[in-house]
Amino acid sequence: MPAPKSALHADSLVSELSQRFEKVRRQTEVLVEPLTAEDCQLQSMPDASPAKWHLAHLTWFFETFVLERFEPKFEPFNASFRVLYNSYYNGVGDKYPRPQRGLISRPSLQEIMAYRAQVNDRIQNLLTTGKTRQDNHHELAQLITLGLHHEQQHQELLLTDIKHAFSFNPERPAYAKRWPLAGIHQQPVLWHRHAGGLVSHGFDAAQDGAFSFDNEAPRHPVYIAPFELASRLVTNGEMMAFIADQGYQRPELWLSMGWDWVQTAVTHHTDQGSLPLYWQGDARDYRNFTLQGLVDVDSNTPVCHLSYFEADAFARWAGARLPTEFEWELAARTLPVPRLPANFADNAAFHPLPQQDPGHGVPAQMLGDAWEWTQSNYNPYPGYKPWPGPVGEYNGKFMCNQFVLRGGSCATPQSHIRTSYRNFFPPDAQWQFSGLRLARDV
Amino acid sequence: MPAPKSALHADSLVSELSQRFEKVRRQTEVLVEPLTAEDCQLQSMPDASPAKWHLAHLTWFFETFVLERFEPKFEPFNASFRVLYNSYYNGVGDKYPRPQRGLISRPSLQEIMAYRAQVNDRIQNLLTTGKTRQDNHHELAQLITLGLHHEQQHQELLLTDIKHAFSFNPERPAYAKRWPLAGIHQQPVLWHRHAGGLVSHGFDAAQDGAFSFDNEAPRHPVYIAPFELASRLVTNGEMMAFIADQGYQRPELWLSMGWDWVQTAVTHHTDQGSLPLYWQGDARDYRNFTLQGLVDVDSNTPVCHLSYFEADAFARWAGARLPTEFEWELAARTLPVPRLPANFADNAAFHPLPQQDPGHGVPAQMLGDAWEWTQSNYNPYPGYKPWPGPVGEYNGKFMCNQFVLRGGSCATPQSHIRTSYRNFFPPDAQWQFSGLRLARDV
Amino acid sequence: MPAPKSALHADSLVSELSQRFEKVRRQTEVLVEPLTAEDCQLQSMPDASPAKWHLAHLTWFFETFVLERFEPKFEPFNASFRVLYNSYYNGVGDKYPRPQRGLISRPSLQEIMAYRAQVNDRIQNLLTTGKTRQDNHHELAQLITLGLHHEQQHQELLLTDIKHAFSFNPERPAYAKRWPLAGIHQQPVLWHRHAGGLVSHGFDAAQDGAFSFDNEAPRHPVYIAPFELASRLVTNGEMMAFIADQGYQRPELWLSMGWDWVQTAVTHHTDQGSLPLYWQGDARDYRNFTLQGLVDVDSNTPVCHLSYFEADAFARWAGARLPTEFEWELAARTLPVPRLPANFADNAAFHPLPQQDPGHGVPAQMLGDAWEWTQSNYNPYPGYKPWPGPVGEYNGKFMCNQFVLRGGSCATPQSHIRTSYRNFFPPDAQWQFSGLRLARDV
Amino acid sequence: MPAPKSALHADSLVSELSQRFEKVRRQTEVLVEPLTAEDCQLQSMPDASPAKWHLAHLTWFFETFVLERFEPKFEPFNASFRVLYNSYYNGVGDKYPRPQRGLISRPSLQEIMAYRAQVNDRIQNLLTTGKTRQDNHHELAQLITLGLHHEQQHQELLLTDIKHAFSFNPERPAYAKRWPLAGIHQQPVLWHRHAGGLVSHGFDAAQDGAFSFDNEAPRHPVYIAPFELASRLVTNGEMMAFIADQGYQRPELWLSMGWDWVQTAVTHHTDQGSLPLYWQGDARDYRNFTLQGLVDVDSNTPVCHLSYFEADAFARWAGARLPTEFEWELAARTLPVPRLPANFADNAAFHPLPQQDPGHGVPAQMLGDAWEWTQSNYNPYPGYKPWPGPVGEYNGKFMCNQFVLRGGSCATPQSHIRTSYRNFFPPDAQWQFSGLRLARDV
Repeated sequence: MPAPKSALHADSLVSELSQRFEKVRRQTEVLVEPLTAEDCQLQSMPDASPAKWHLAHLTWFFETFVLERFEPKFEPFNASFRVLYNSYYNGVGDKYPRPQRGLISRPSLQEIMAYRAQVNDRIQNLLTTGKTRQDNHHELAQLITLGLHHEQQHQELLLTDIKHAFSFNPERPAYAKRWPLAGIHQQPVLWHRHAGGLVSHGFDAAQDGAFSFDNEAPRHPVYIAPFELASRLVTNGEMMAFIADQGYQRPELWLSMGWDWVQTAVTHHTDQGSLPLYWQGDARDYRNFTLQGLVDVDSNTPVCHLSYFEADAFARWAGARLPTEFEWELAARTLPVPRLPANFADNAAFHPLPQQDPGHGVPAQMLGDAWEWTQSNYNPYPGYKPWPGPVGEYNGKFMCNQFVLRGGSCATPQSHIRTSYRNFFPPDAQWQFSGLRLARDV
Repeated sequence: MPAPKSALHADSLVSELSQRFEKVRRQTEVLVEPLTAEDCQLQSMPDASPAKWHLAHLTWFFETFVLERFEPKFEPFNASFRVLYNSYYNGVGDKYPRPQRGLISRPSLQEIMAYRAQVNDRIQNLLTTGKTRQDNHHELAQLITLGLHHEQQHQELLLTDIKHAFSFNPERPAYAKRWPLAGIHQQPVLWHRHAGGLVSHGFDAAQDGAFSFDNEAPRHPVYIAPFELASRLVTNGEMMAFIADQGYQRPELWLSMGWDWVQTAVTHHTDQGSLPLYWQGDARDYRNFTLQGLVDVDSNTPVCHLSYFEADAFARWAGARLPTEFEWELAARTLPVPRLPANFADNAAFHPLPQQDPGHGVPAQMLGDAWEWTQSNYNPYPGYKPWPGPVGEYNGKFMCNQFVLRGGSCATPQSHIRTSYRNFFPPDAQWQFSGLRLARDV
Repeated sequence: MPAPKSALHADSLVSELSQRFEKVRRQTEVLVEPLTAEDCQLQSMPDASPAKWHLAHLTWFFETFVLERFEPKFEPFNASFRVLYNSYYNGVGDKYPRPQRGLISRPSLQEIMAYRAQVNDRIQNLLTTGKTRQDNHHELAQLITLGLHHEQQHQELLLTDIKHAFSFNPERPAYAKRWPLAGIHQQPVLWHRHAGGLVSHGFDAAQDGAFSFDNEAPRHPVYIAPFELASRLVTNGEMMAFIADQGYQRPELWLSMGWDWVQTAVTHHTDQGSLPLYWQGDARDYRNFTLQGLVDVDSNTPVCHLSYFEADAFARWAGARLPTEFEWELAARTLPVPRLPANFADNAAFHPLPQQDPGHGVPAQMLGDAWEWTQSNYNPYPGYKPWPGPVGEYNGKFMCNQFVLRGGSCATPQSHIRTSYRNFFPPDAQWQFSGLRLARDV
Repeated sequence: MPAPKSALHADSLVSELSQRFEKVRRQTEVLVEPLTAEDCQLQSMPDASPAKWHLAHLTWFFETFVLERFEPKFEPFNASFRVLYNSYYNGVGDKYPRPQRGLISRPSLQEIMAYRAQVNDRIQNLLTTGKTRQDNHHELAQLITLGLHHEQQHQELLLTDIKHAFSFNPERPAYAKRWPLAGIHQQPVLWHRHAGGLVSHGFDAAQDGAFSFDNEAPRHPVYIAPFELASRLVTNGEMMAFIADQGYQRPELWLSMGWDWVQTAVTHHTDQGSLPLYWQGDARDYRNFTLQGLVDVDSNTPVCHLSYFEADAFARWAGARLPTEFEWELAARTLPVPRLPANFADNAAFHPLPQQDPGHGVPAQMLGDAWEWTQSNYNPYPGYKPWPGPVGEYNGKFMCNQFVLRGGSCATPQSHIRTSYRNFFPPDAQWQFSGLRLARDV
């Protein structure tokens, strides 16, 4: 992985990393404050994990990849955690079965918090004293930095997982406070034209900052045909028009695999026909479950929790298509700075928000609000090499049957996202804050 | 259902029922004392329920079948509980899906305890004041009595369910303290002969007490051929001999359906081949998970957690067979009084114990220790009628593809069992304390 | 198994067995005459087998259990058939997987017919010359007799299996010619009372003939309470009343397991709601697929292809219950002789027929037309012993989660049935000609 | 779709199309000559179809898309075939369920042959007389041409499907005669370097002939980095080295989804561990089932029937990677002409053959022998438009979770393939003749 701009020699860099460590780790704990120990135990499907597991696994990451390697006289906090909180790193050894994470009531939430506190102290100690088993301070800084980005990824998953779990509770508990939407009006869709051509694509340290995952590199030439991109995300109101036009009942709008999915997916059906995940009711009164509780579906708010299949069918219905990740990134790189404020997890709305001003020629919501499905498969860039060592299992081994999403969401920490960032999920995944922006050929 | 011997007119009977109510309800709470709120959240399979759900459902039973009917100006504690804690009573209305009971983190354990306390007070109030919506005090007493037997049934399930859930924790948490087994020696199997003949079978108030479930009646004539019954339960040591003799590998010992099961049941296989549920290790060192934690398999202890298939195969291997429930009950009725002390939940061992004295001509362990699989299907007795009203869904609708077990176990409250008591489970169920006693033709 | 009345010494007995062999074997071939080689290849579910497989397996039975044992210098027709056509005899060795029987296009139907012819000749040769490897002519006669009853069982399965397979063909091919029903009127249900008492139950050579399966023995005393039995089978017209009364929508009529089944069983649902297997259309125009093709549902014809769940729910709806197999047999034994003519496979209607005369005090349709579900589980009789040797896998190992049916059907050869005959299927099985007769307590 | 070079005005073109029609249609019938009617009935998995179904569906295609549209006074051969032999065209209407195609014994093979003959005559009549309902002879020629390419695609599927079905037969029937391999020696792998750059990619009528599927267009610019491509396909011998090196047991070689697959795929496991599909035995004696019957695994023969997962894992083990489809096509376009003879279905070997001469600087086996997995997902080319009308369901709707294969195989008709041809299958598909060629970065 790319190093932070320099290594640890300079006290200021140590201090910066130490502060960042403190801040990011603390933020995870802030996110679980609205949750009880019982809430933190919930696992509603194999793809989701209990909040307690996230808290522990994130700590396991630092313990296993940093302390075990760098700490002199390393002793594990609890030897059994090595298996229990390993997610999928075959290089580390055995893993506790993923679908059973919700069955671990002990250690308690309290013990996991003690685990976090101890590992935090030991990491800070490593940073402060500089006394490490190996004298590779550069790599130490790299791994801590990676761990913090890893932590931020799981902060988003923690939110989407608890939302999924809470949706099974007939009382539909609210995780966060209601966000006021009064006085926001619909913005029309404008089309921004891009000339394309042979462009450089992928992580660019000059523009994207000090860190990237291995899957964003290497930067490489790509030829892109001219295209147009919509000025904002597709809204709930537009999705309601799709539903009203029998979009869920017309096979010609769907991929073959999507059509099979739409007829069998359990979470997709309601007594009123197929609806997006977390929606209920009918055309006279759609409501959707959010982290703010059960609310009326707002027409101007970006639609989210769409599967790739739904996003693709919507785009076809709208006479458009999904953008490629190359188009998306090219468009994002041409946005004037500053692109913010955007609706990230820092906002604590935890739901997409409507476009609030006309945009003045700049696409809105490119970052934040909802991840944008692209039609690009999650493939290695030419010349891609996974990181060496166990952390190399981070990205490359998942490059199959997944589609790339871009731009971050209302559940993404703002400091985690960048233009070259590639998120990826299988086409039937719905529980992320996944929406879409339309594109079309010129 | 049979009434308690009299109704509520006499103060002494009211007082007796009130005290029994207090005692039985309290006992459920005693059983969850070793558990945390997180433990009480666990559901490890659709057949098992979280301890918190048991606590709530038992209270729902009194609220729905007693308070709602008898309390003047009845108001529910929480209207949503009517669905959330309905187990399977279609007559009451909708039910929250059983496999998702573990996804209800809210209400919290604390709120459920408050629910219990309030309903307890209201039931006691009904009993004390005698002010009821209907003047049918006889039925009120009946329903409270039924509710208490229902509560005791779930006390056993609460224990077997938490054992199942804890077994997924690699740390194998102990629920109870270790029970000392030193100085106990093996007792030989003796065979007790019974002449059979045309006998009366089923609940007999004179012998079995004031209460029975509807499925134990009516008492009716049954013809039984002469048979012999073993003097004790089959032990772990005998099961080890079966394993060593390749019992799990020989199709001729198994029912066809059992042979399919033994080759596919996930919980049944270990790296060392098929073993009884909760066993691990190999012939040099078998260990089994108990509510006392992970312990060495003790040779003299009755084997338990057998499926019907395993019990049946063991019996065939031993050149014997399982008894019918008619044989078992006939034998149990001929035991000299007192038959106790026996190893019930009251003992707090929560695991079967070895036979400790020679028996002196009386079969040991007929009551307590482990439920005994019989070869009898769970069928209605001739002339069987389910109770009227919603509580009629209690037993009759489950009379299909289940086998009868007799005698109670180490997890059964002593005051809950009687000679005519019929427990029932499908032939592949293993998570109850189910063992066997051999029978043979004369 | 019980021997034929005498052994082979007497020429007349040899001749009788030889003729019976010729006749029964020939009948199987008559049954496949309406079928093409392609038809004979069909397997529509794991429980059903291709007609070609039946033809071969029946021959395998004689080759394996008779020729291999008795023929001097035995050589198999084709060594690979030993595995390919073994149904479920673990004692014989490996078995080709049951769900894949439809994937065996070679050997061809023609080759299987040659296989039959050769084995027929060799069996006849054994009988004629009396030159056998072992001098146990008694056992030889027993095994050939068993093989012929086995053949007759499969004649029925061949019919029910091809019916099931043809039902997937949108053209709904007719296997047999249409049977005229004009001029038949509905017969009222009368109730025949039986006093019950302590009676002898099970195979009785004096009354039931020379042969029985092991599961019909030993004859033993059973106590039966007084009961009443309906004078005929339940009809399609009565089933239509059940449907019209929302019988498939009312949980209180169903066993819990049946209610689950009725809501999930794929073959059970139509666009018009739940219907019996092979029914289609709606109340104005029900049609059902029969071996005579697609016909109007006739009101007076006995209903068939019911699962146990449906039979049980219907009986509950009708305020009655299913009889036990003990009641059924007791009633059948008290019928005046002759009980025939009845509607067996010999009739070549291959569908139940309406009761045609008033009965004159004798229950109609006790034998033939449709198998009658009883509420009795398929359990061993007291003192039951499976036959020794590999043929002992015939019955005993299936005694689990099955219910007993009595009386034979329109697909049963007449010479195959007897009063003590016990058929058995799991409660969700529908593809046999299974109906019901009501019983009630006195 | 691109038109044949001209339309039907000229008699010579009519005559050419008519002859091609005769020839291609006849070839399908030649392919079923080794099969019996019973063989033609087999369906071994939902993804495979009976040979009889292929024969009928191919005729349905001409009847539905050509005759129904162009024939004056069109009458269907059999109205029920419209549903029965519709594969997946929602625009045409209902479809008979795919997994049940093997349950259609009637119409018989003979009737389907009559169906073919009649439709053939009617198509030839249309071509000869030119009397059509619409005067669009250009489109008529297009659709017949499409139908013939469709026919050739199914010729390959017919072979792979019957191979799959025959593999379930313990006798392992041979479809074709044995091909002699004596005297062929191993050829070393050479690496051919390509400079890449911005190149034109996709169907090029000048080079690729008169016809292409819609998914090969439009031709568009792609930037390709320099790369090297192996001179031949990976062989069985190399696969054996992978197996011997524990390739199937090392998670680091596999995609995460592939690793899950390798541990659960039923067809993949043998008693000797994981092996490629159709292999059996162990390292001392591997044999594999081919259309020539069960043969020894030949070291020099290209390995085939690999899933994408296996091809990808092998490439990683070999320190290389799979090529992209862009690299493959670029390399194929630079091959000197003539590239043939190659091993296509025309050869009637129906199995890949070893490289037979050194190649003289030209990659061997680019066309024929085995399809080559590429790392490219099956995605639309920029500007892709599906064909208008019902035939537009041909390709686009399958662009999800599939990978592109290139080059054709030993089961592909030679006249069907071209450099721009894109085949596609999901990553777990094994039953096609799918192998791989290695690529690497420069």
